[in-house]
Amino acid sequence: MQVALLGGTGDIGEGLALRFGRDTDHTVIVGSREADRARAAAEAYAGLLADRDHTADIEAAPNPAAAARGDIVVFAVPAYHLADTIEGVADELGEAVLVSPAVGMQRDEDGLHYNPPGVGSVTALAAQVTPETVPVVGAFHNLAADRLADLDATLGWDVPVVGDDTAAKEQVMGLTDGVDGLRALDAGGLANAAEIESLTPLLINLAANNEGLHDLGVSFL
Amino acid sequence: MQVALLGGTGDIGEGLALRFGRDTDHTVIVGSREADRARAAAEAYAGLLADRDHTADIEAAPNPAAAARGDIVVFAVPAYHLADTIEGVADELGEAVLVSPAVGMQRDEDGLHYNPPGVGSVTALAAQVTPETVPVVGAFHNLAADRLADLDATLGWDVPVVGDDTAAKEQVMGLTDGVDGLRALDAGGLANAAEIESLTPLLINLAANNEGLHDLGVSFL
Repeated sequence: MQVALLGGTGDIGEGLALRFGRDTDHTVIVGSREADRARAAAEAYAGLLADRDHTADIEAAPNPAAAARGDIVVFAVPAYHLADTIEGVADELGEAVLVSPAVGMQRDEDGLHYNPPGVGSVTALAAQVTPETVPVVGAFHNLAADRLADLDATLGWDVPVVGDDTAAKEQVMGLTDGVDGLRALDAGGLANAAEIESLTPLLINLAANNEGLHDLGVSFL
Repeated sequence: MQVALLGGTGDIGEGLALRFGRDTDHTVIVGSREADRARAAAEAYAGLLADRDHTADIEAAPNPAAAARGDIVVFAVPAYHLADTIEGVADELGEAVLVSPAVGMQRDEDGLHYNPPGVGSVTALAAQVTPETVPVVGAFHNLAADRLADLDATLGWDVPVVGDDTAAKEQVMGLTDGVDGLRALDAGGLANAAEIESLTPLLINLAANNEGLHDLGVSFL
């Protein structure tokens, strides 16, 4: 399978690329608005994995070309760039499954707060601007990027996944379960995304307020 | 310390009464709108603990009398009864710390969704109707009642706690940490309650959609 990571030069993209590259046999395509940056990032990720004696197939492409190649296309971009990024590659998505991990947050004096768009969640916003023929799945919202990108770190995290297309959701759950220390859980339809996204500011608030806790993820038990 | 559980005959009240009774030395006061129901529940809880060779100090009182006695007063009532219940005992709270565990949810065809009041969270609503002299703490929002009340079940759950009064918050965190298998975590001020409350419908949606998962709680790691 080919997994495209649009915005793959960013911190969540880096973590996903390294983990997919190390733990799965999928081809990872690092996408960026700038081809040079995509290439530099892909080479850096492959180098990090080679240092650990992993030969991973990590390639690079501008976002539209990456979207065209991906069986699964992850939009690892900030929430406020998500709609633009999807619209910019919409014609390239073909039969891909689109994955949205973005979360809208805002900070005030108390901490971080969930700040969803009017449509109810960032994942729902992604669905709204995606061609109807392309299934949209919400996943990877709650992964702490720094720990994800630290290949020495064990995870033990659960990944709630939402989507209205069952086959697409199961494909993304399979991708997720292929990563050591991640367990995909079915959280139902896209309408259930807000409760997943709002967990992310809670994780950050908990890390900010409790000594010894950093880069938190979640386990449901 | 005396811990009053208003609505202590309900399912979350039962679980808290049994766990506090078994794992701590605090006096538990089961409150109810009806004195007879409070008494019957307190006797049933004490009986369950006696069957396990635990002698617990579990007493009963009508809600106002329970509120008057509690150093910590937990409002273990449904979200839509919370404001009324607080207002009904407001004059009795004295120097108590008020704890709000309630979550507002509504169900649709996709599952359960967080349904906060206009003030932003149920915990914030509790604070709005509580006398200013009484510190309000949010805690116990994410505990699955059935598992909590099953004394054979181990928990391993984290309890995010919010409050603007640091001493009151620490007192509730200490109470929480006294229960085997619960770890209190500081989630900051009351303004951070919504992200905690919205975790509860997610836990229920995950249990509904994944075989083998029931009565879920959460661990942050």
